[in-house]
Amino acid sequence: MSHITLDNDQPGIRGLFQFRPETAVPLNLLAEVLLRGDSTLTRGERELIASYVSSLNQCRFCTSSHAAFAAAQLPAGMELVDQVRADPETAPVPAKLKALLRIAAAVQRGGREVTPDLVRAARAEDATDLEIHDTVLIAAAFCMFNRYVDGLGTYAPDDPAAYAAAAERIVASGYVSSTDDAEQPAR
Amino acid sequence: MSHITLDNDQPGIRGLFQFRPETAVPLNLLAEVLLRGDSTLTRGERELIASYVSSLNQCRFCTSSHAAFAAAQLPAGMELVDQVRADPETAPVPAKLKALLRIAAAVQRGGREVTPDLVRAARAEDATDLEIHDTVLIAAAFCMFNRYVDGLGTYAPDDPAAYAAAAERIVASGYVSSTDDAEQPAR
Repeated sequence: MSHITLDNDQPGIRGLFQFRPETAVPLNLLAEVLLRGDSTLTRGERELIASYVSSLNQCRFCTSSHAAFAAAQLPAGMELVDQVRADPETAPVPAKLKALLRIAAAVQRGGREVTPDLVRAARAEDATDLEIHDTVLIAAAFCMFNRYVDGLGTYAPDDPAAYAAAAERIVASGYVSSTDDAEQPAR
Repeated sequence: MSHITLDNDQPGIRGLFQFRPETAVPLNLLAEVLLRGDSTLTRGERELIASYVSSLNQCRFCTSSHAAFAAAQLPAGMELVDQVRADPETAPVPAKLKALLRIAAAVQRGGREVTPDLVRAARAEDATDLEIHDTVLIAAAFCMFNRYVDGLGTYAPDDPAAYAAAAERIVASGYVSSTDDAEQPAR
């Protein structure tokens, strides 16, 4: 049971968006720009970073959600998502993405964990400054989203079908339209 | 020196806002709603939570910035901010705020650290669900902002006057107007 009375039965962050639509707007806009906006990283790669950081933070709702969103937008699907979650070093991802995942893992531990060496290694694999910037901000943003979802004790569905259905919505319509749904506060 | 080439000489998050105005917009809107929007917590109290979490994350730029923003909006000024940073348990703050600071500290460690007991204790001091929600989201958001600022190796001015000048701008005009400044990308 969530720590506060949400007056709705939506799981994870969706219940929080309905409870507090004023903060749902910038949070969804941030997700939209970072995970779906113009970028030289694919949407699948960015969702992969999001689900990986969420798994490091042990946030079940966000991990399952963004794993499903990544799987739906990566040619190799959930198998690759699971491999990255188990061990990004041995997962069959391009060297640049592997270097960016190392930066994301450092950010999850703390901002000061990102060393010049980690950044140099990403640049050596042709990561651009913008890709490094966005990787750091995606990882940092999921350190927020994960704490928000778990810090308020929201519930995470067990049924994978719930996350697959959310993936269909996100792939088709993005994050901002889910804010529109949430704009009828339940309070 | 920052890990990426920002092409501007702004410190901390301001340099990142200029580098990436697309993400600056939702980030500033989030700060505006959380720290300055309608709330039963004062702006000073909310900035105090922000600076406390930033100090736990050892983010010098954010700690100094939000300490200055809190001091400018609290009757007891910087003395109280310093007391909270040193030890919130012995700082002369109301019992409700003390209970909310305990929740914020738990969020900083991780979302799953927020226990029903911590929430119950805040409610026993008349904290509302919305105050508990906003405290969790402020603490979570600063786990993002702190990692963003330090994860990209931005610089933090030594001179307290720099933070006092920023406090004047924020108190007078808020966070969203600082996005407007940043909307001329330097790239």
